[in-house]
Amino acid sequence: MKIALSQLNYHIGNFEENTAKIIQSIAEAKAAGADLVVFAELAIGGYPAKDLLRNAAFLNACEQSLAEIASQCKGIACIIGAPVRNQDPEGKALYNAALLLAEGQVQQLVKKSLLPDYDVFDEYRYFEPNKQVNCIPFQGKTIALTVCEDLWDDDGPNSYVGDIMQELAKENPDIIINIAASPFSYTHFESRKNVLSRNVIKANAPLIYVNQVGAHADIIFDGRSLALNKKGDIIAELHSFAEDLQYVELQKDLGSAQAVAVKNSSEMALIHDALILGLRDYFRKSGFKKAILGLSGGLDSAVVAALACEALGAENVLAVLMPSIYSSDHSLKDALDLVENTGCAHHIVPIKDIAQAFETGLAPAFEGKAADTTEENIQARTRGTILMAISNKHGHILLNTSNKSEAAVGYGTLYGDMAGSISVIGDVYKTQAYQLANYINRDREIIPVNTIVKPPSAELRPDQKDSDSLPPYDVLDSILFQLIEKEKSGSELVKLGFEEVLVQRISRLVNNAEFKRFQSPPILRVSPKAFGPGRTMPLVAKYPF
Amino acid sequence: MKIALSQLNYHIGNFEENTAKIIQSIAEAKAAGADLVVFAELAIGGYPAKDLLRNAAFLNACEQSLAEIASQCKGIACIIGAPVRNQDPEGKALYNAALLLAEGQVQQLVKKSLLPDYDVFDEYRYFEPNKQVNCIPFQGKTIALTVCEDLWDDDGPNSYVGDIMQELAKENPDIIINIAASPFSYTHFESRKNVLSRNVIKANAPLIYVNQVGAHADIIFDGRSLALNKKGDIIAELHSFAEDLQYVELQKDLGSAQAVAVKNSSEMALIHDALILGLRDYFRKSGFKKAILGLSGGLDSAVVAALACEALGAENVLAVLMPSIYSSDHSLKDALDLVENTGCAHHIVPIKDIAQAFETGLAPAFEGKAADTTEENIQARTRGTILMAISNKHGHILLNTSNKSEAAVGYGTLYGDMAGSISVIGDVYKTQAYQLANYINRDREIIPVNTIVKPPSAELRPDQKDSDSLPPYDVLDSILFQLIEKEKSGSELVKLGFEEVLVQRISRLVNNAEFKRFQSPPILRVSPKAFGPGRTMPLVAKYPF
Repeated sequence: MKIALSQLNYHIGNFEENTAKIIQSIAEAKAAGADLVVFAELAIGGYPAKDLLRNAAFLNACEQSLAEIASQCKGIACIIGAPVRNQDPEGKALYNAALLLAEGQVQQLVKKSLLPDYDVFDEYRYFEPNKQVNCIPFQGKTIALTVCEDLWDDDGPNSYVGDIMQELAKENPDIIINIAASPFSYTHFESRKNVLSRNVIKANAPLIYVNQVGAHADIIFDGRSLALNKKGDIIAELHSFAEDLQYVELQKDLGSAQAVAVKNSSEMALIHDALILGLRDYFRKSGFKKAILGLSGGLDSAVVAALACEALGAENVLAVLMPSIYSSDHSLKDALDLVENTGCAHHIVPIKDIAQAFETGLAPAFEGKAADTTEENIQARTRGTILMAISNKHGHILLNTSNKSEAAVGYGTLYGDMAGSISVIGDVYKTQAYQLANYINRDREIIPVNTIVKPPSAELRPDQKDSDSLPPYDVLDSILFQLIEKEKSGSELVKLGFEEVLVQRISRLVNNAEFKRFQSPPILRVSPKAFGPGRTMPLVAKYPF
Repeated sequence: MKIALSQLNYHIGNFEENTAKIIQSIAEAKAAGADLVVFAELAIGGYPAKDLLRNAAFLNACEQSLAEIASQCKGIACIIGAPVRNQDPEGKALYNAALLLAEGQVQQLVKKSLLPDYDVFDEYRYFEPNKQVNCIPFQGKTIALTVCEDLWDDDGPNSYVGDIMQELAKENPDIIINIAASPFSYTHFESRKNVLSRNVIKANAPLIYVNQVGAHADIIFDGRSLALNKKGDIIAELHSFAEDLQYVELQKDLGSAQAVAVKNSSEMALIHDALILGLRDYFRKSGFKKAILGLSGGLDSAVVAALACEALGAENVLAVLMPSIYSSDHSLKDALDLVENTGCAHHIVPIKDIAQAFETGLAPAFEGKAADTTEENIQARTRGTILMAISNKHGHILLNTSNKSEAAVGYGTLYGDMAGSISVIGDVYKTQAYQLANYINRDREIIPVNTIVKPPSAELRPDQKDSDSLPPYDVLDSILFQLIEKEKSGSELVKLGFEEVLVQRISRLVNNAEFKRFQSPPILRVSPKAFGPGRTMPLVAKYPF
């Protein structure tokens, strides 16, 4: 039996494009002599469709798309994910289903049992869980057909429904097929590989895993679909961050006994590739081509500019340099060097006169008050307004250039440097941003070396340095990692050996910035715990330590 | 048996304050001779604590608070809600529990069975559902103790666990006690009353319902706890939007046969009172006293200013008037009239020179381009920057003044008039804002009549009127209500008789504004479907019609 793994990039709600793409893939697999082609979880409709799953027009379109695709399944079968209405009015409106289509119609329907609702997931909001699991028959073979989380039982907190694979294994399946929409994080591939191979061993059956690829504002799917033989060896690995179609042959086992070497990408290469896909899909799927960003001469905006030029083409990137009276001599030169290295367009709009006009207009309201961070914020918001104005006038999308360290501690101005439609490196700590800059420069100097080596500064007052108000970034980031990724409380960090006074200060900064982050743009998610829907905090709470 | 209903306003994570308040209430009830005092769901810790429920320090503090409260339960018992750790490592980490405390310790623990995860709820994220329900004994009585949603089975989509009250009714309980954290919306009280009385009939038992009161950024709890006798008559109704402590006597039935007249507040009175509580708690719980807002002379900012003066005291409100060259003659006068009527402070900061400085600075970047909405947005963002600057300098919190109609269609400027820490009327349609203005003026003219009667205008270009770009607000709001509150698709609206071209246009505006609303401040929720966590939409999707 020849099985195709079809790893596609779906656009949520774009039924015309998705359906055409799926049908094209079926035709290709059929021409190649495949018996079965496997698509991802919720391929129909796209994922995460969120509350569109409550919209009648969306669900009707899902049904129509499913019927169209089924009609193409003649002489070939397909397995595909779709939201399917629950006929029982007592339960949730939908099932998250895997459908086997053959002979022009739906032959089998398998419902997802384990609905994740941790981190970025909220599947209980929409779906009724399956309660009774069975393998399905196909051309004399027994398939253990599962949807994503159904195989993660041994690793996740969702175990109360029972161990799905253990149940299915009782039927001695010839193969496990798992369709997935499993978001990327730079640590996720290892866990995925381990979970899949544990399931292979458990059921003594080979496994096909087909993931989505593509990005939807914050969430990025890396693809990297896999086929594993009975021993748990990887015998096929599809592209990371790109569409792909590959074939495997199922006899007694899957493929030859030959394992393939798994692609060994560095963490930085993965993050880089994820961000490129995230940027590219944000623009393509929202129908825009051109990006704008403020280029300060510092590290963060340089990294974002370089990524944008790679993702969108330098001809679609406009860098705006907005020097102030506090900008250092090198800043403008460093920014212009980057413009030259990348070949993007640029404007220079000095902010001195505008900031001055604000201060003059505000003088009566500020009477008797000394200068403080207010004046720094005015500069940042002047820049935000300039960027948004050019964006409005020319139809560019503003890229936010904040990194995760500063987003964490609130070292940024709301409506100023926190503005933008999408945050490119908001899930990348400052220490990682340096590594990313070096990775970007791996073949030639794109980001000027001076941008990388000079001490980081917001340049909002004379001779300001980040280190005036923050601990060194390696210290800061190691604390933030524990507070955010590891979800530790302050007291736990102190027990781990971190300095109490410092942890208290950082912890307070993180808490006090919740209200700012609430209004931040969506952030391309590359870590296991990004700011955004995967981490929701109350706003007017008293935070424990 | 004398039972106290203790309806308190909890501050999330503020264990010191909450615990003291609960202990004080227990002492008061004991002094009044009560046998039992009933508190709300998740009273310990506060609700919604969101991902603080994953924080070890938060959970430790919950346990410590519970122990302290239990130690006070001598000669009196109490029923209280708290997150309780699940000892089974296979399930979610917590139960949402109701605890019976007596003789200094926990006597009974009842876990919530039905975990809501629709609208603003996401309880499956944190809690393991209960699977086996039983009544509990207390002083010779059988209590059907339930947590909030457990009684909503007959009305909600959460029925797969089974009908909880039907199970409990088999034990012939003497009384149903429901502890709740049930958010306010202006339609919610009717449904609540009906659900409670259906449960009373089902179990042939009287019922005590204790709700939280208070607001947490977006979510507002109205309190309004109830006691119903066996016939389903309401025999006690606690205050709306305020703390309260009342007593009922349980013999064969609850209280005398005498029903009390339910308070009959108009929809506008409820919305008004909810917004006042929402504002007051936002400031109190975040530790701020003073508010700032931009006062244009138009309706929305006038309504917000009047509400803020009532909620916080006029002495804590600063109105900033920021006339432009397009401001009408009447605008400044109308704004000043409101300042006089309320007694709040004000500043006048004209924006002409600043907007001019932006246009001068941007001239090279705008070369060859005609004036368009960009210049309007510059004015709005100039105002946003002025307000944030005064807010930064003096420690005021900026109130956002957008209404729900304009938030829906994107008729507002991101980082401009969409700025603010909390949106006061972002869940109030423009047509409702007029009614609210009239309600505010019910005793005397606070909002100038001219502000109410003049045609609405953003005054961002000469002689601009809202009706230039939008249909009349009554037409617009009736379409928005169907799209948002009723979650209808465009096609469904056309079938309902709405004009297709208009629905298409409005629907497109709503969809195109998703990215703006993503960055909007939290919105005080008063309707069954507010923008915010109760309505989550994908951002780069193609939206179905």
